[in-house]
Amino acid sequence: MNNFSHVPPGFRFHPTDEELVDYYLRKKITSRRIDLDVIKDVDLYKIEPWDLQELCRIGTEEQNEWYFFSHKDKKYPTGTRTNRATAAGFWKATGRDKAIYSKHELIGMRKTLVFYKGRAPNGQKSDWIMHEYRLETDENGTPQ
Amino acid sequence: MNNFSHVPPGFRFHPTDEELVDYYLRKKITSRRIDLDVIKDVDLYKIEPWDLQELCRIGTEEQNEWYFFSHKDKKYPTGTRTNRATAAGFWKATGRDKAIYSKHELIGMRKTLVFYKGRAPNGQKSDWIMHEYRLETDENGTPQ
Repeated sequence: MNNFSHVPPGFRFHPTDEELVDYYLRKKITSRRIDLDVIKDVDLYKIEPWDLQELCRIGTEEQNEWYFFSHKDKKYPTGTRTNRATAAGFWKATGRDKAIYSKHELIGMRKTLVFYKGRAPNGQKSDWIMHEYRLETDENGTPQ
Repeated sequence: MNNFSHVPPGFRFHPTDEELVDYYLRKKITSRRIDLDVIKDVDLYKIEPWDLQELCRIGTEEQNEWYFFSHKDKKYPTGTRTNRATAAGFWKATGRDKAIYSKHELIGMRKTLVFYKGRAPNGQKSDWIMHEYRLETDENGTPQ
């Protein structure tokens, strides 16, 4: 179900953080139609980073960034910690989350994660980087 | 007559030389419909480079490249030399033309020109660069 042929020649998918959060993520979360099906749904915990490339390919262009949606998986059913392990390794947060603004209004946050092969705490750091975007919510947990 | 709103968020116009020649220029020359009206028609000899930005704007994005179609103007009615002068200056070719290939087939050429303020041979070189694309023609002058 790739509608990418509708994008005229010469156009490349290079979204800004603001576009990813304010258009793509917001529409996805509210189940509204997205104009072009360029961002695939994957289960991040069942797929290794090196297998994402094929799944998230856009057109025939060579890519070094891949975009996808994935549901967060909780580490424990009752907890709030996120499980980001795959069969071959795990994603580990690094640095500080970055605030994403739209017209000076905070709309979301971007977390950076690195993929480690193996199991914590003995994983082996890889070159795979992921940016995880979330909408910024108010204290009541409703999207702003 | 700007249909650009039809391009979904996150897409940028970064065409390759091949796309510019093989899709946009070829369609233009044969008067076939171009999916999106992103490349404007201008009369290059009536417009200064610094006025192109406004005319050739695509969406709201900040740009440092502008795309347009323009008819070549002959210096003398009976000659083959091209006149590339404007009111404020002139475009002068620099370097060698670059061959543009599609699947190892020569489809076009790209000429690089620099804008000089004033009149030849006393013009003052500016930072404005233009790439002029043409289809490659065979000896009989018909587009290949």
